[in-house]
Amino acid sequence: MRCVPLFLIVAVLGGLWSVGTTLAADTERVEATQFTVYPIGWVRKADGRTTIVVDKKYEPGLLGLEKFSHVWVLYWFDRNDTPEKRSILQVHPGGDMRNPIRGVFATHSPARPNLIAMSQCKIISVKGNVIEIESIDAFPDTPVLDLKN
Amino acid sequence: MRCVPLFLIVAVLGGLWSVGTTLAADTERVEATQFTVYPIGWVRKADGRTTIVVDKKYEPGLLGLEKFSHVWVLYWFDRNDTPEKRSILQVHPGGDMRNPIRGVFATHSPARPNLIAMSQCKIISVKGNVIEIESIDAFPDTPVLDLKN
Repeated sequence: MRCVPLFLIVAVLGGLWSVGTTLAADTERVEATQFTVYPIGWVRKADGRTTIVVDKKYEPGLLGLEKFSHVWVLYWFDRNDTPEKRSILQVHPGGDMRNPIRGVFATHSPARPNLIAMSQCKIISVKGNVIEIESIDAFPDTPVLDLKN
Repeated sequence: MRCVPLFLIVAVLGGLWSVGTTLAADTERVEATQFTVYPIGWVRKADGRTTIVVDKKYEPGLLGLEKFSHVWVLYWFDRNDTPEKRSILQVHPGGDMRNPIRGVFATHSPARPNLIAMSQCKIISVKGNVIEIESIDAFPDTPVLDLKN
């Protein structure tokens, strides 16, 4: 029977444990508190129509929305989801160098620590899990996080 | 020298590995795409004043905010951050049973899949990393995710 010395197993497992806890502690130092968000739907643009296609499982959440003229759409600037873009704190508003530099929290800049965008959109129709809206300043296939009145 | 049979080590490590990958696959099935958000500050209420205290490292993001009369505050309904509260899709608006049931995406309900709240607040002052606002319908110590114009 082939054997491995017990002290060797303890040493190796101990080493793995210490690497694991060191990494966890480092992550903790960066952001102690964090929350998870996920898409409830997606912006779609096709045939001259702009729609929010909500995941089928969230369709009950749309009940009554058709009675309103507008909806707030919260979405995720997914093309900027990098540590670099999320560390930008000051910008020239509108990306125009002639505009004096301003803090991202005093703008609608798509580069910001939490990449949440918000737009108030005119509702054209609500059918099943699809909301047709007049327009939205978002790329096709952008993840939608929330809808509100 | 005390020994542990090699086959036993292989069997135990193999077992741990398979548990790990099964759990990861299950999580993936629940939500394939997700994003991480973290507080950039906190709602504080003391001595009759309501403030947003932004983390010192984000203070440069406030440059120019003092020129505006109002700010949109996006915050996290942290007291509802449970799988149960995040699975609620229909509510009686305002928690009043006399209001007909409505989808959460047609309300401002604090129970919703992504627990993002938004309020437009009147700015009283911006000093360093502290924004004094007139009021906000949020509990003290609520995590703030974003500020916008």
